Amino acid sequence: MTIQHTVVFRLIHAPGSAEEADFLDSARTTLAAIPGVTDFTVRRQVSPKSTFTHGFSMVFADQAAYDAYNAHPRHVDFVQGQWVPQVAEFQELDFVA
Amino acid sequence: MTIQHTVVFRLIHAPGSAEEADFLDSARTTLAAIPGVTDFTVRRQVSPKSTFTHGFSMVFADQAAYDAYNAHPRHVDFVQGQWVPQVAEFQELDFVA
Repeated sequence: MTIQHTVVFRLIHAPGSAEEADFLDSARTTLAAIPGVTDFTVRRQVSPKSTFTHGFSMVFADQAAYDAYNAHPRHVDFVQGQWVPQVAEFQELDFVA
Repeated sequence: MTIQHTVVFRLIHAPGSAEEADFLDSARTTLAAIPGVTDFTVRRQVSPKSTFTHGFSMVFADQAAYDAYNAHPRHVDFVQGQWVPQVAEFQELDFVA
């Protein structure tokens, strides 16, 4: 059963800043290329009922593919080197049919 | 520009209960039939990092279609008569490309 992994977040950077664009570009380049990741998308979160400003979404074929992504060195490096220092708040949500 | 409107939530009912199934069936029947709603889906939220257990997702062609849905009497009735009394917690998130 496929799993849609999503995260909504707000960066420490100003909206529309070069730092924001750099973070999103780096995430897209790094995360979408990790084995098992399909349908990677970067979206803006626009509901005024939430303070999150962006979202990533990706689809895994099964839990094994999701687990492999979580443990992949390029994912771990991205989280430690870019996510943690640049993300002010976030929420993960995963969906199955 | 299309808008994906989503809400994640947790019901007051026990997981797997008849009351849960009734709520989900009613939501699907009622909300998916409101003009402007496309791609209506009911999903389970499975990340242990969130206490939400379900999600609805729907797509609107534009903000006018979204506004018309929000104001539609069948939506208003559903929120007042079923959503408010049966939903313990929820979060709305809306996405654009």
